[in-house]
Amino acid sequence: MKKVLLASTALLLTAGFASAQSIELSGSASAGLQYDENQTGNEVVVANEVDFTISGSGATDTGLEFGAFIDIDESDIDGAEVFISGVFGTVTVGDIDPATDTFGIADVGYDGIGVDDAAEQYKNATAGADIHYAYAASGLTFSASVEFGDEESYAAAVEYEAQGFSGGLGYITDSDADNNTWTIAAGYGQGPLSVNGMYSDWSGGGEGYGVDVSFDTGAATITAAYSNATGSSAGGPLGDSYGIGFSVPLGGGLEVAGGIGSVRPDVDPGDPEEPARAVADLGLTMSF
Amino acid sequence: MKKVLLASTALLLTAGFASAQSIELSGSASAGLQYDENQTGNEVVVANEVDFTISGSGATDTGLEFGAFIDIDESDIDGAEVFISGVFGTVTVGDIDPATDTFGIADVGYDGIGVDDAAEQYKNATAGADIHYAYAASGLTFSASVEFGDEESYAAAVEYEAQGFSGGLGYITDSDADNNTWTIAAGYGQGPLSVNGMYSDWSGGGEGYGVDVSFDTGAATITAAYSNATGSSAGGPLGDSYGIGFSVPLGGGLEVAGGIGSVRPDVDPGDPEEPARAVADLGLTMSF
Amino acid sequence: MKKVLLASTALLLTAGFASAQSIELSGSASAGLQYDENQTGNEVVVANEVDFTISGSGATDTGLEFGAFIDIDESDIDGAEVFISGVFGTVTVGDIDPATDTFGIADVGYDGIGVDDAAEQYKNATAGADIHYAYAASGLTFSASVEFGDEESYAAAVEYEAQGFSGGLGYITDSDADNNTWTIAAGYGQGPLSVNGMYSDWSGGGEGYGVDVSFDTGAATITAAYSNATGSSAGGPLGDSYGIGFSVPLGGGLEVAGGIGSVRPDVDPGDPEEPARAVADLGLTMSF
Repeated sequence: MKKVLLASTALLLTAGFASAQSIELSGSASAGLQYDENQTGNEVVVANEVDFTISGSGATDTGLEFGAFIDIDESDIDGAEVFISGVFGTVTVGDIDPATDTFGIADVGYDGIGVDDAAEQYKNATAGADIHYAYAASGLTFSASVEFGDEESYAAAVEYEAQGFSGGLGYITDSDADNNTWTIAAGYGQGPLSVNGMYSDWSGGGEGYGVDVSFDTGAATITAAYSNATGSSAGGPLGDSYGIGFSVPLGGGLEVAGGIGSVRPDVDPGDPEEPARAVADLGLTMSF
Repeated sequence: MKKVLLASTALLLTAGFASAQSIELSGSASAGLQYDENQTGNEVVVANEVDFTISGSGATDTGLEFGAFIDIDESDIDGAEVFISGVFGTVTVGDIDPATDTFGIADVGYDGIGVDDAAEQYKNATAGADIHYAYAASGLTFSASVEFGDEESYAAAVEYEAQGFSGGLGYITDSDADNNTWTIAAGYGQGPLSVNGMYSDWSGGGEGYGVDVSFDTGAATITAAYSNATGSSAGGPLGDSYGIGFSVPLGGGLEVAGGIGSVRPDVDPGDPEEPARAVADLGLTMSF
Repeated sequence: MKKVLLASTALLLTAGFASAQSIELSGSASAGLQYDENQTGNEVVVANEVDFTISGSGATDTGLEFGAFIDIDESDIDGAEVFISGVFGTVTVGDIDPATDTFGIADVGYDGIGVDDAAEQYKNATAGADIHYAYAASGLTFSASVEFGDEESYAAAVEYEAQGFSGGLGYITDSDADNNTWTIAAGYGQGPLSVNGMYSDWSGGGEGYGVDVSFDTGAATITAAYSNATGSSAGGPLGDSYGIGFSVPLGGGLEVAGGIGSVRPDVDPGDPEEPARAVADLGLTMSF
């Protein structure tokens, strides 16, 4: 016998319980075809992903909000995070990324063909994060992260968003591995059109940059993206990648999307760039 | 503090939301004793299983239905599937079985002692599935499955059910491993009695067949099953297995069930049949 | 789109369905700093834990209650249990502990610094459990557990609780490994103060004992604990450990807690005791 969780409108029923705790389920899934010209034998494969999130949250009478998440995918549990939030901002620990991880450009395709990988590989230098802090007010978001002990690192990012314009600046230093990255990002949207770009300068000898352009026709969104990395790899691809894709919302959380492009494989630091290859995907995405 | 998911009657509250998405939880569990005369030292073991399913689903205004599942058992996550359904039928990808997997005979016992294994080992030849398609109308169900690329295979099955009679025919060919199976199944039910049988002919040199008979006394259902495999094993047992069992629903999703029989162990392809051994189980099954 | 599970007050809506099955989600999380003077490099680490439980349950019209649980933490699924309960008591199988596992003293700190480990290491001898039985009436709880087959063991425990006083006696024998433990426990609470102690005598040549004292100031609970083990280790620490901690409920399921103490590391059976080290923790705990 199936049990049914009510949709979020049912929250009204519990509106009387001021500091009530709750546990929520949300999820997403995708299924589609993925083409890679370099894949020997199986150039086209059938792929699918399922991901559910369990979120617990609560609030004190004094206005503190707190909670925790885990992600359950086809075979693993990951993404465990614990946060506390108040007038001071939000502090998060767990399976988190550095403050500079927020920067990026759009990928194309229902599952992503990897056009953005070249540009985004330097933004976190070689660092991780133990604690993440964020504070947002009046369109400005400040975030910082720290990694303690042997794996010492520090990161900070500022983002501003107002009247269609967005801009951001981030710095991260991996103290124990002695490398750092400056990243700058900017975007602009006007009506159905939006443009977004980023540039990272990594002290390990690599530079990455990329740009995406999206146009919303009403029925569909068309997105094109270009990304490039020069110098030394930080584990991502070297050289330029580009692609174009679309997504069409079908209603109720279902979308059909696809993309086609020319991307390059990841290379180890110190290795030269690999030739580009044609890739494409076409599939459905669902959110619950 | 425990959070409570409402039983499915609560769905009425959300009936007003036409294309609402929802996430449902369902589950089952069992616990019991399992006897195997060949188990050295511990002929009787205490066994238990717990399995919960998270299901996300949604619908578009145009009548497409879609969703995804995962199963969470005592130690693993598996069974991830993504489907889309409409007037054209249902397409499923993920952790799926070939179209011919639907054929089978009953096992006996609360957890199954394996009487059906001999008969069912050939129905999928040596193939798997990447995409499964099903269409049902007027008692007829047509299903097909395909495996792409290096592991190329194709399967199709037709099943018909009307006025107590059921019949089915299936064919699967594992193209890359060069073997195939024809399966035929038939069943009939009249009042408390039902009979069901299947026969598979595998091009790898094996034949499997089996039959089950069930009688519902009102308070309990008694089931007897017989299964046999001759020729070459496809990884299952060779020779005949038989058993008899019962199940008594106690209400609210709880059942007590048990079975006793003579079954044979799995043998590798090419190996001769192993002697039969006595097995039995007795336990509880629960559904939530 | 997020789905919302209603808080337990919503159970009222389903009160009309006598033998309804249900599936519940509950959870807890913690985050904090943990100090250990012996940890080279990183004396202070940032730690976090997330744990959700899926519970299925049901009842028959004749009054049997039944259910199953699994725990999902940051990376694993464990704690699968299946139970059935009635006038005869409660029988549980799965990932369970022996009947004597119920004895213990308080640990201190938001996550526990391990003050109780020395005292508690002998209570289960070297045994596990396949089946657990419990019966409670009039303040008295009787429990027993059995392990079958090669890993044969038996345990029984009696606990009594009335008018602020609690007492318990337990015996466990690991038949195949030929060792056993007697454990006695007692506690008393009066107003804001409570005291609790235990003593274990292990036939493997070890003795463990400990005591904790708690005082509830209204805003906070202060807890001090002392524990000691002499003779041979059963895998836990030898020598004495002690600590003091506090916990302050902030409302809505959030608490801030911490502890500081001197504890000893686990030693293998036969090894001498290791020197004590200073440890401390400070963090938040959440329940959903």
